[in-house]
Amino acid sequence: MAYFPNVEKIQYEGKGSKNPYAFRHYNPEEVVEGKTMREHLRFALAYWHTMTQDGSDPFGDPTNQRTWFGETPLETAHNRVDAFFEILEKLDVDYFCFHDIDIAPAGDSLEEFFANLDEITDHIKEKMEETGKKLLWNTANMFSHPRFNNGAASTNNADVYAIAAAQVKKGLDISKKLGGENYVFWGGREGYETLLNTDMKFEQDNIARLFKMAIAYGEKIGHKPQFLIEPKPKEPSKHQYDFDAATTMAFILKHGLEGDFKLNLEANHATLAGHTFEHELNVARDYDALGSIDANQGDMLLGWDTDEFPTNVYDTTFAMLQILDNGGIAPGGINFDSKVRRSSHEMDDLLFAHIAGMDTFARGLKAAAKLREDRFFEDLKEKRYASFREGIGASIVADKEDLESLTEYALKHDDPKLESSHIELVKSQLNDYLF
Amino acid sequence: MAYFPNVEKIQYEGKGSKNPYAFRHYNPEEVVEGKTMREHLRFALAYWHTMTQDGSDPFGDPTNQRTWFGETPLETAHNRVDAFFEILEKLDVDYFCFHDIDIAPAGDSLEEFFANLDEITDHIKEKMEETGKKLLWNTANMFSHPRFNNGAASTNNADVYAIAAAQVKKGLDISKKLGGENYVFWGGREGYETLLNTDMKFEQDNIARLFKMAIAYGEKIGHKPQFLIEPKPKEPSKHQYDFDAATTMAFILKHGLEGDFKLNLEANHATLAGHTFEHELNVARDYDALGSIDANQGDMLLGWDTDEFPTNVYDTTFAMLQILDNGGIAPGGINFDSKVRRSSHEMDDLLFAHIAGMDTFARGLKAAAKLREDRFFEDLKEKRYASFREGIGASIVADKEDLESLTEYALKHDDPKLESSHIELVKSQLNDYLF
Amino acid sequence: MAYFPNVEKIQYEGKGSKNPYAFRHYNPEEVVEGKTMREHLRFALAYWHTMTQDGSDPFGDPTNQRTWFGETPLETAHNRVDAFFEILEKLDVDYFCFHDIDIAPAGDSLEEFFANLDEITDHIKEKMEETGKKLLWNTANMFSHPRFNNGAASTNNADVYAIAAAQVKKGLDISKKLGGENYVFWGGREGYETLLNTDMKFEQDNIARLFKMAIAYGEKIGHKPQFLIEPKPKEPSKHQYDFDAATTMAFILKHGLEGDFKLNLEANHATLAGHTFEHELNVARDYDALGSIDANQGDMLLGWDTDEFPTNVYDTTFAMLQILDNGGIAPGGINFDSKVRRSSHEMDDLLFAHIAGMDTFARGLKAAAKLREDRFFEDLKEKRYASFREGIGASIVADKEDLESLTEYALKHDDPKLESSHIELVKSQLNDYLF
Amino acid sequence: MAYFPNVEKIQYEGKGSKNPYAFRHYNPEEVVEGKTMREHLRFALAYWHTMTQDGSDPFGDPTNQRTWFGETPLETAHNRVDAFFEILEKLDVDYFCFHDIDIAPAGDSLEEFFANLDEITDHIKEKMEETGKKLLWNTANMFSHPRFNNGAASTNNADVYAIAAAQVKKGLDISKKLGGENYVFWGGREGYETLLNTDMKFEQDNIARLFKMAIAYGEKIGHKPQFLIEPKPKEPSKHQYDFDAATTMAFILKHGLEGDFKLNLEANHATLAGHTFEHELNVARDYDALGSIDANQGDMLLGWDTDEFPTNVYDTTFAMLQILDNGGIAPGGINFDSKVRRSSHEMDDLLFAHIAGMDTFARGLKAAAKLREDRFFEDLKEKRYASFREGIGASIVADKEDLESLTEYALKHDDPKLESSHIELVKSQLNDYLF
Repeated sequence: MAYFPNVEKIQYEGKGSKNPYAFRHYNPEEVVEGKTMREHLRFALAYWHTMTQDGSDPFGDPTNQRTWFGETPLETAHNRVDAFFEILEKLDVDYFCFHDIDIAPAGDSLEEFFANLDEITDHIKEKMEETGKKLLWNTANMFSHPRFNNGAASTNNADVYAIAAAQVKKGLDISKKLGGENYVFWGGREGYETLLNTDMKFEQDNIARLFKMAIAYGEKIGHKPQFLIEPKPKEPSKHQYDFDAATTMAFILKHGLEGDFKLNLEANHATLAGHTFEHELNVARDYDALGSIDANQGDMLLGWDTDEFPTNVYDTTFAMLQILDNGGIAPGGINFDSKVRRSSHEMDDLLFAHIAGMDTFARGLKAAAKLREDRFFEDLKEKRYASFREGIGASIVADKEDLESLTEYALKHDDPKLESSHIELVKSQLNDYLF
Repeated sequence: MAYFPNVEKIQYEGKGSKNPYAFRHYNPEEVVEGKTMREHLRFALAYWHTMTQDGSDPFGDPTNQRTWFGETPLETAHNRVDAFFEILEKLDVDYFCFHDIDIAPAGDSLEEFFANLDEITDHIKEKMEETGKKLLWNTANMFSHPRFNNGAASTNNADVYAIAAAQVKKGLDISKKLGGENYVFWGGREGYETLLNTDMKFEQDNIARLFKMAIAYGEKIGHKPQFLIEPKPKEPSKHQYDFDAATTMAFILKHGLEGDFKLNLEANHATLAGHTFEHELNVARDYDALGSIDANQGDMLLGWDTDEFPTNVYDTTFAMLQILDNGGIAPGGINFDSKVRRSSHEMDDLLFAHIAGMDTFARGLKAAAKLREDRFFEDLKEKRYASFREGIGASIVADKEDLESLTEYALKHDDPKLESSHIELVKSQLNDYLF
Repeated sequence: MAYFPNVEKIQYEGKGSKNPYAFRHYNPEEVVEGKTMREHLRFALAYWHTMTQDGSDPFGDPTNQRTWFGETPLETAHNRVDAFFEILEKLDVDYFCFHDIDIAPAGDSLEEFFANLDEITDHIKEKMEETGKKLLWNTANMFSHPRFNNGAASTNNADVYAIAAAQVKKGLDISKKLGGENYVFWGGREGYETLLNTDMKFEQDNIARLFKMAIAYGEKIGHKPQFLIEPKPKEPSKHQYDFDAATTMAFILKHGLEGDFKLNLEANHATLAGHTFEHELNVARDYDALGSIDANQGDMLLGWDTDEFPTNVYDTTFAMLQILDNGGIAPGGINFDSKVRRSSHEMDDLLFAHIAGMDTFARGLKAAAKLREDRFFEDLKEKRYASFREGIGASIVADKEDLESLTEYALKHDDPKLESSHIELVKSQLNDYLF
Repeated sequence: MAYFPNVEKIQYEGKGSKNPYAFRHYNPEEVVEGKTMREHLRFALAYWHTMTQDGSDPFGDPTNQRTWFGETPLETAHNRVDAFFEILEKLDVDYFCFHDIDIAPAGDSLEEFFANLDEITDHIKEKMEETGKKLLWNTANMFSHPRFNNGAASTNNADVYAIAAAQVKKGLDISKKLGGENYVFWGGREGYETLLNTDMKFEQDNIARLFKMAIAYGEKIGHKPQFLIEPKPKEPSKHQYDFDAATTMAFILKHGLEGDFKLNLEANHATLAGHTFEHELNVARDYDALGSIDANQGDMLLGWDTDEFPTNVYDTTFAMLQILDNGGIAPGGINFDSKVRRSSHEMDDLLFAHIAGMDTFARGLKAAAKLREDRFFEDLKEKRYASFREGIGASIVADKEDLESLTEYALKHDDPKLESSHIELVKSQLNDYLF
């Protein structure tokens, strides 16, 4: 059975195309900077937003019209696998991501849940072999169940901690089974509702403890995906420990995890933390920790995670510049952690929305590549920091100066000439690359 | 000459007092938890807000009426020293803080500036000896001069870097001369206006370089104050590198500065970064890096640093709880980085405002001490985390478990009993301690 | 059957009480400014947060443990009525509020829904007669059902508009049946998801149209409750038309509704719109439109409606000052639009949380009354605006001046003496009233 | 003397041009929708940001390098007039705007200030006649002088009120002298620092009083420019009464000013109030009150007015759509209330920055015109609201229905079919118009 019987595999038809079932900017096989767009972008579909998101919000019931509901939760789960791979194929997307709970029913016990996972991952593995699609990353949902109300690894309840550990073990087993390239931790409940009853240090030490167990277990089973922490400042918790990239790096460095863990950065999480997405990507790069990205966009006037499909070309250009400057995003990828708006409730909107996102990233990639080809930013920065490549500047950078030698120098050179940034001109010229 | 000829030294008169020139809550010699309030609170006056702040804002001219202006900048500077120590004495405050530029005119060259600093610090030293007042910390203003537009240690101009280094050297020389207990770095321009023309890693490496020169110089001259970095997320820069406590800790750990640097945390900077003040204090404690605090409060509905005098008793109670739990704030202190509102433009408002702030912190100290005496939070947390003190919880904390053992346990214990936090009851009971 | 078999009616036991099932500050029969606290505060319970809120959030499943679930939705609905009136009685609260959908199952058709409403409101009416409890206000939920995704009165679908109209008619019929004193409109979906596809003017004209139908129908059936619009800026919609008090007044004035409509103001909605609660109350008073309030508090660091029980004494004091200055809140009241935190999931937390809220408002009432007794703010303002009570000021206020006469005056008086606000002193003195 | 001796009048050179002293998108004489771009856009230069802004910020001294400083304030003022008209000519901009204090020194008395204004406006009038440039609007600065600390028309000091009235009279006299097409009121201090000492109603009534005096005086002197109020939510005041477009409309309606007053809307003020610029423009249109605009852009991650030159093509497209849908902006215009960044401190940056802004608006105009030509949004909305053009919808809009008739209808039609918005597809297609 096909879930989108009237839709063919989406093809590139170029900018002029009026066909809503076609790419106008993303041409998977087009070569940019020596690699195909497909290789650069490594797009992934998110199981949750694509298959289980229902259009509900805190004030409203589900709106999404979906055709994969079966008689039992397990039948629905199997239908979803088929539908999901159909979407992957029709959108020509190579990778996918999921939480454990997205793909299989929880059942009445942990044992039953794990059995369901085994059954469904058998099905997924079969579809992977059939289609060549690959697992970018999986993760364990350790935030939805009531038991995780006060955290999973940061819980105040030791039994809950054990269950979290069991889910992580199962997640790593599944990762091995399906050849996952990365494994993600997002700590939606790893934080606090109120500091009044919270021992932050104790909780964060316990989180580090679980991460070390995960590293050890990966080594034991001979499967070591790239481990990723995904920062987010708040929602659902009032405060989440992995507030942003820099905060997460402090945690990683404090606990000696820097050899094993990198970051999975999300656009909307960046803005909720008060940063641009490109800022977060740049911070990660500076710590050699840019692992993978969750592509979406938020609404700058709203204070919660809207997870909209990315359609802003400025944002994707700046993101792709960071990724190209990073030498690419592999073994990570670009996962659409994006959901259709509540009013886009038809099945086809799943396709339209991903096409919109993929086209927007393709535009960003092309603009970024052109900017790099022209050394637009490279030349700008080279000129701007020129004084550190000779004389006293070079000596500073070579660690040959101290406060006394610099004081001596400064007393003779206390009226430096400052250059204008001409930043408005720069922004105006930049527009010509994007538009 | 006296600047407040009609005001006596402010005394404690108790809650009923209607005298605006009296403390109603701060009793310097009252003993709390075995120390006097004076010893606990270690209040400091900020030279800038007290002596040089003029009431102007981005849309308005100065409003403050001050009587210390002389015929020349240097005469004004000397008058300010006298007035400042008069205020310190009348407010019975033991400590003070300043930027280099607060106390002495910049003159026409760096050489002249340093000469002015020598002259004025001679005057200050004399007043210190006369009164027993102490220098909590000093710092170099490396953000106001146009040359620092693109940063001081993070500048793109090597000559500017040298000048910054010279100011730091001078700052440390002054610190030694005046027996400073701490030395602060606040990087108002250490950040970026736009990522488009910025090399973040290069700039931050240069900042670390300057910090290491400062450490080395302190060792050389045999004067090693506690070095402090003061986080702030933005303003004046669009983004400042030391965004918040955790971000600054990542920087400190990355560059191996953790032995020499702690944090100077400001209430209003915390809220601008999206955190409560107590959160920032707790983060610092968890990294063993709570150095000193800048006391003030912001307006939660405004997006800039308002630096209001602290008058919210909730906030000071939560801050004092962190400080008491930290075993005190020494060698740091509580510096009033607070300015009178633009409409409080009379000389006496400098006194009234500090009395308000000191009384509010005194209330916070007393409430916090009572809460600790009753083990209000201690008992709450002990009960809440009880499951980690025995059985599987104790074993987890003892690092005796791994993913496999915990899975085995979880499969048998997958329905943990969750306790209510009764958090509304807790908050209601808490009110009785404060009010 | 009793749902809280071990709990007696909550009594006032005074500040020292350690009994969590007692008021420590709210003494219903205590007289303040010539009225009992009960009469001043006119507390109401919200059916939704008390009876149907389940503890779920966008990232998590329900946590609340409730004992009123029956075999069928209708049985559950009946159980809830009994439990609700038990809570009203045990908390000694006189008023209540509900949405249609809170009290009765939607069934499979509008007809069935209305029949369910008839059945349940019969039950409620009986309980009201039995207990003397009163309906502060009811409203129609026109935001949860998928059909309201694009609005109810502002929908783009005429059939949806008709259904909304039918719910309003039913709401007014119920209001008449139960003697409702007010009727509320909150437009959670009356706004837009995106301006791109929205005709704002058309939509708002349609809203005004529905309001006029409601007025006409009320007149027809001889039941005219006070109509209230409840402003909120966003969530669930990206933008809601009734952004804040002033925006709503513009709408009311534009459409000539000022004789029939007043405002129902919520604390957390105020802060989401960038205002303090007291600001919104003051705006409403200035337009003679303060109708009723929804009591709760938000988290100033979070960007969504947290609807926490009010526990901040500053906030309730400022709110009560506005209400006392308004001559009271009747025929409106203080409705607890507040929900227990997700971690307060036990039945008893419903009691504890309301006690916390009621005690906090009682504190606010007492502090406000004391401030008024001492003419704390009255004297402050009288002095501050004194120049408008004589001379040129009095003449301005009497509309006797024009630009020319004032120019003539100003040219002779161009150096006015400005008084200090001593605002820090004021805030410090204010603390002594609260604490 | 020429201030930009090496720069010719800026010409349109088309997109490919690399000449920074050329327009690449703005072609003043190009016809769009039957009018030249010049006629559509009605660009104006702001005297304050162009001539008097100095690059200082709350933490830093001036950085701007300007060549017009003379020996005396008055000489500088005259030089500025010459330089300003040179810039107007070189940028080929037809209109300009100023505050009184921008153009002439305040002197030592109001009398002297007015005399200076007379002298400088003589000079300006001469340049206007020489060049054909026109005054879009002028205004009185009633916020910078310390006397306005507590407001101008909303002051608590009657003498200050008289001075404000005198400045408004002078402003209207100047408007008449120079043929001003609009006159603006921006109330930077018309609001409060704290509600604690504020009588909002009294203050706002006094503001309305001054506005009525202005209307009367305009009638008396036979010069009636379009009066405009400029909303802004905060900064410098904690709260400004004209928070946003809707709030200002409530004030206008309450005081019966709707015949004489429209709105001057600024992009950055919109976002500080929590709205998009296009939202504010749309609100104004709905009240028939779109008067003029202040073009700039803010930083969505910063909480203060950054007044950046507009370079975001999305924003200018949405703004131009509103303006075209409004039938144009005349007699208002597009005033660049934008300032060069602190790092763009050279004279030429004044040109580069305006070119960037003008080009960005030209792009927006072209994209908007193309969207309108294709009826992109018109068709979308026509389809979306189709149900209100026939049957029950048409009857509702014709005011022929009531709650009873709609209930009858709804009971038979309670399962409306909801159409998907396909909003992601719409946004993706929209990108092709912009880029």
